[in-house]
Amino acid sequence: MGDNLFAILEEGTIVTPKGFKAAGLHCGLKKTDRHDLGAIVCEVPAVAAAVYTTNVFQAAPLKVTRESLADGRLRAIVVNSGNANACTGKQGEEDAYTMRSRAAAEFGVEESDVAVASTGVIGELLKMDRVIAGIEGLPGRLSGAREGAEAFNQAILTTDLVKKEACVTVSVGGVNVTIAGSAKGSGMIHPNMATMLGFVTTDAVIGQEALQQLLRQTADLTFNMITVDGDTSTNDMLIAMASGLAGHDELSPAHPDWEAFASGFQYVCRMLAMAIARDGEGATHLIEVHVNGAETDEDAQAIAKTIIGSSLVKSAVFGADANWGRIIAAVGRAGRPVNPETVDIKIGPISVLEQSRPVAFDEDAALAYLQGDTVNIEVKLHTGSGSATAWGCDLTYDYVRINAAYRT
Amino acid sequence: MGDNLFAILEEGTIVTPKGFKAAGLHCGLKKTDRHDLGAIVCEVPAVAAAVYTTNVFQAAPLKVTRESLADGRLRAIVVNSGNANACTGKQGEEDAYTMRSRAAAEFGVEESDVAVASTGVIGELLKMDRVIAGIEGLPGRLSGAREGAEAFNQAILTTDLVKKEACVTVSVGGVNVTIAGSAKGSGMIHPNMATMLGFVTTDAVIGQEALQQLLRQTADLTFNMITVDGDTSTNDMLIAMASGLAGHDELSPAHPDWEAFASGFQYVCRMLAMAIARDGEGATHLIEVHVNGAETDEDAQAIAKTIIGSSLVKSAVFGADANWGRIIAAVGRAGRPVNPETVDIKIGPISVLEQSRPVAFDEDAALAYLQGDTVNIEVKLHTGSGSATAWGCDLTYDYVRINAAYRT
Repeated sequence: MGDNLFAILEEGTIVTPKGFKAAGLHCGLKKTDRHDLGAIVCEVPAVAAAVYTTNVFQAAPLKVTRESLADGRLRAIVVNSGNANACTGKQGEEDAYTMRSRAAAEFGVEESDVAVASTGVIGELLKMDRVIAGIEGLPGRLSGAREGAEAFNQAILTTDLVKKEACVTVSVGGVNVTIAGSAKGSGMIHPNMATMLGFVTTDAVIGQEALQQLLRQTADLTFNMITVDGDTSTNDMLIAMASGLAGHDELSPAHPDWEAFASGFQYVCRMLAMAIARDGEGATHLIEVHVNGAETDEDAQAIAKTIIGSSLVKSAVFGADANWGRIIAAVGRAGRPVNPETVDIKIGPISVLEQSRPVAFDEDAALAYLQGDTVNIEVKLHTGSGSATAWGCDLTYDYVRINAAYRT
Repeated sequence: MGDNLFAILEEGTIVTPKGFKAAGLHCGLKKTDRHDLGAIVCEVPAVAAAVYTTNVFQAAPLKVTRESLADGRLRAIVVNSGNANACTGKQGEEDAYTMRSRAAAEFGVEESDVAVASTGVIGELLKMDRVIAGIEGLPGRLSGAREGAEAFNQAILTTDLVKKEACVTVSVGGVNVTIAGSAKGSGMIHPNMATMLGFVTTDAVIGQEALQQLLRQTADLTFNMITVDGDTSTNDMLIAMASGLAGHDELSPAHPDWEAFASGFQYVCRMLAMAIARDGEGATHLIEVHVNGAETDEDAQAIAKTIIGSSLVKSAVFGADANWGRIIAAVGRAGRPVNPETVDIKIGPISVLEQSRPVAFDEDAALAYLQGDTVNIEVKLHTGSGSATAWGCDLTYDYVRINAAYRT
């Protein structure tokens, strides 16, 4: 994976890459006093790329953001939480355009250089007086210091418990380049960009096509390999902005340091994706599923996602039950080629199935392992060389509690 | 649907059709003293048909039953609960064959006329001494009276709370024909025959091909349209046996009373499927999803199944929350053609979305409706004439409790 090609910046944030500032505040969309409006602003036009939810019903802000991204550059992203502005019809679209135009005016940039993102309840109109007053308060709060990023990170959360960020530096042509990211979960998370927003900033010099391709490939291996509950939302998007202020030779796959850059970029996205899975609604465990020996990587991905999406597997992990029968049942219903006689399964270090036959194992050791914070499930199919990793979380009483009472 | 073409027999059971007896007893596979071994026996060779789980990992009894069904006839079915005899290798296969041969000897029939079914924990060998002693106790308990069916019904349950049966009579050429069924759920239930066993008996005279085709079509509209948690098991099967003792002209799709027979047959399977959904692990509500106006019936089926399978929709129903945003999000991620501007959604009698726009509705009325036993969700797509109905249940604390501690 090339994880030695970059250095982790523990204290880095989305404003660590050169050229970025961020802000966040409470404008009144959330019932609590938590932040619910934020922005990232770049001091120069940034090369930008995005991937969006595959849901047929796409929220109004996605339409507006697609328009802004048409020329491949952005100066600012304005984000609200507490209201998804989805299924809100013409008024919702107008509101998203208004968010864009007011943010552009406040930040002194072109409207077409502003992206808009929203997350929260579906089907209710935004309280635009609050949003507009909030946007007016953003410029004075923009900061290139840690506090700006922290305020932004707070502003994008819904039922998330913790902020999710990651930052690395990588050497490109002898110049230090920084890549950072921030994201929110945490329900409706599934492969294909479920209710999640992700923002990646970098000061790398990179062409739009290269950035878009890297973002798409990376999303498929990271954000699209996590699931909390199998639902995908109307609002998800992942946006990357590259300010170019690091000032090296333009990156492309032909650049000698491309692999280093790509691996750092992927690391940031993987950390964010894993953080979303770990903070899934009600989660008490991060579950990591590795599938090896499938016929193709795509087969391995489909099988890994089926295991990580199984309510029975997720409940078993919550109960610290080494119930490999549910794992193999999930493998068998993924709809991909599997030899029913050659499957090995390990739960952490403990082998529970070899060549599709149960292995006697120490139940106490399994219980102790399953009570840890992270649970690894490894499935070897022995039919090819395809592999994949997926991340998810356990299914708990709290997931039900949170989702039985979210809207009311 | 032709539901007026047959009469419901409230007191009917799987032994009401002429020629059938049943039995059940506790042999010691379950930790409780509930029945865990049962049989249905037909006094003549019955025309038989079956559909099986689509899971790649098929339990040993399925292999044995497929062999017995190869000639399209059966005299007996022997079933155990408490142990699925799945992922048990060569020994598991030998055990399933032993169950078949011992049952054949006890019932005085050919081995190849006996089907074997198992349900319960995966990956543990059957305690064959207990199974064999149990089988020896079955012939003395066989009964054509209600008590035989009740003992059998108990014997097939795992985490089910209630027994599931249905019975109708229909006139074929002026002769009364009876169709009855018995089934078990209740976790790992999903389209494609999840952990569920279903048994249909009838005294109709019908060819094997016609019975197999009817069973397949009916399963697709009933058992394959229910979901509890999206998991499918290694053990599911649905078997139909027709004794022919009603003594009318042989039924086939060309018979003038075919529609009446088929509608009665479908009714029995629908009632069993709905009962499985209603008794899903931890369920407090039956959810019925109707999708109309899809481009094709297959599209409607896929969309209905996506809605009924959504953990967020299921949690919202548990919380009596009219959260239609989650319903439309599920519609949008089903991967089928949908016009995002023309969707209507009703929750029971309450219209919540028209032409994809929220409708102001009485929250108290919605709350009162959602607190009822059955929740209807109706989705109209207005793009074609495809329709489908799916059944499921809410996601509750008890689902998590049951599945966090099943094996241990």
